[in-house]
Amino acid sequence: MKTSRTIAETRSAIGSADDIGLVPTMGALHAGHLALLEAARDECEFVVATIFVNPAQFGPGEDYERYPRDEEADAEAAAQAGVDLLFVPAVEEMYPEGFRTWVEVDDTGGHEAEARPGHFRGVATICLKLFNVIRPTRAYFGQKDARQIAVIRQLVRDLNLDLEIRVVPTVRDPDGLAVSSRNAYLSPSEREQALALPRALAAGAAAYRQGKSAVEAARASMNGLQVDYIAEEIDGEERMLEAAVRVGRTRLIDNVILEGDS
Amino acid sequence: MKTSRTIAETRSAIGSADDIGLVPTMGALHAGHLALLEAARDECEFVVATIFVNPAQFGPGEDYERYPRDEEADAEAAAQAGVDLLFVPAVEEMYPEGFRTWVEVDDTGGHEAEARPGHFRGVATICLKLFNVIRPTRAYFGQKDARQIAVIRQLVRDLNLDLEIRVVPTVRDPDGLAVSSRNAYLSPSEREQALALPRALAAGAAAYRQGKSAVEAARASMNGLQVDYIAEEIDGEERMLEAAVRVGRTRLIDNVILEGDS
Repeated sequence: MKTSRTIAETRSAIGSADDIGLVPTMGALHAGHLALLEAARDECEFVVATIFVNPAQFGPGEDYERYPRDEEADAEAAAQAGVDLLFVPAVEEMYPEGFRTWVEVDDTGGHEAEARPGHFRGVATICLKLFNVIRPTRAYFGQKDARQIAVIRQLVRDLNLDLEIRVVPTVRDPDGLAVSSRNAYLSPSEREQALALPRALAAGAAAYRQGKSAVEAARASMNGLQVDYIAEEIDGEERMLEAAVRVGRTRLIDNVILEGDS
Repeated sequence: MKTSRTIAETRSAIGSADDIGLVPTMGALHAGHLALLEAARDECEFVVATIFVNPAQFGPGEDYERYPRDEEADAEAAAQAGVDLLFVPAVEEMYPEGFRTWVEVDDTGGHEAEARPGHFRGVATICLKLFNVIRPTRAYFGQKDARQIAVIRQLVRDLNLDLEIRVVPTVRDPDGLAVSSRNAYLSPSEREQALALPRALAAGAAAYRQGKSAVEAARASMNGLQVDYIAEEIDGEERMLEAAVRVGRTRLIDNVILEGDS
């Protein structure tokens, strides 16, 4: 596995490769990322992973500074997953002085966009930049970030990118919690409380199958968790039940598919 | 010369060509466009011209409906200029139902951006879409649209597009008026009045060379034209004197370089 730290090195390492799979990450790689890397490895000739904690997608007071960073362990995991190129850009090159171009995908981020103003602008802009540097054939995202997927799919369609967005099912720990870099923030007792989130979503899905309100059932099962939102969102053929909660200082999101493809 | 009307046809016609020159136009081709096509023909192996009157860059009450359209004459001119592929997209494919992704380049459009809210958002978005469909090596723009060039250059830099922006000097009629599709709107007497615009800019440039205010000298030479703005703008090494005026119902822009490269 090669590691590149500049755009020029990255373009040079990619050379004339085509059939490129991209797995964009913020590092702190976990089993969810490994599932993305595995899918990319299965489907593409050349796999690029990126590690970039993107300041533009964090709001004031969010966890940009304390977001977990462990490049050495990430590089080891990426190499074992068969990544060909690991791109670790510097903030200074991605957002140089005078940077001022932003991509906005309107009316797609749902409640998550309302809860985190500017978040999806940062996500859309960095993803487009990475797409332009790497020119992937396919890019891989995890179902846990359902609103992000909706935003990126809309961006790809509207901006006529020749790129396939691949969605990989959410990976869960044995206790049901969706794996996330932010789970590292949880104390043991917070982690126990956090299990109410996947359980509430499962209760919502069960209620939906019985023709009842998924949102009401999920809300009733949150077991005292501080709920940012619980909402149904529809993307094309898919209907999802999505929620964000706070456990102590930690904000967690998760979702289940009520109807549709994946 | 081939003509394509869909993105799929365009991608198929381009195939594996590289070293592609793109000349994006709104049609009504004039000597200014021909200079762009000539530069592209000189420098690139495969030349693509596009004709698309982009509704997103026209404001309410502007001239989208009456903007001149003559595809037959344009195709003839493009073929004679050695264009390999003429892409004439449909509004319905470029802005399908549900389109909602926009590119904003902040703080770059200067007085022109203030005078035409939303204009450069429309320009930036359509240019990025065309870049993504055509993947050009170089794209050609005329110096007359100086703010547009500044916006597109900033977009290319910030979004990490692997693309060179080439600027071709403004083409002028023998009387000094910069050629523009909108000159077709002018009555003979309006055209006579409009000549005050290039003369005022020349007066501004002469004053600047003598250490005086270019803006004041230009303003004093506008000869009764209704001035939207006269302003100096600086881009990197270049300092320009730019103006927009109204002659009857017609809005015209022009500029001269006071100092710098081109």
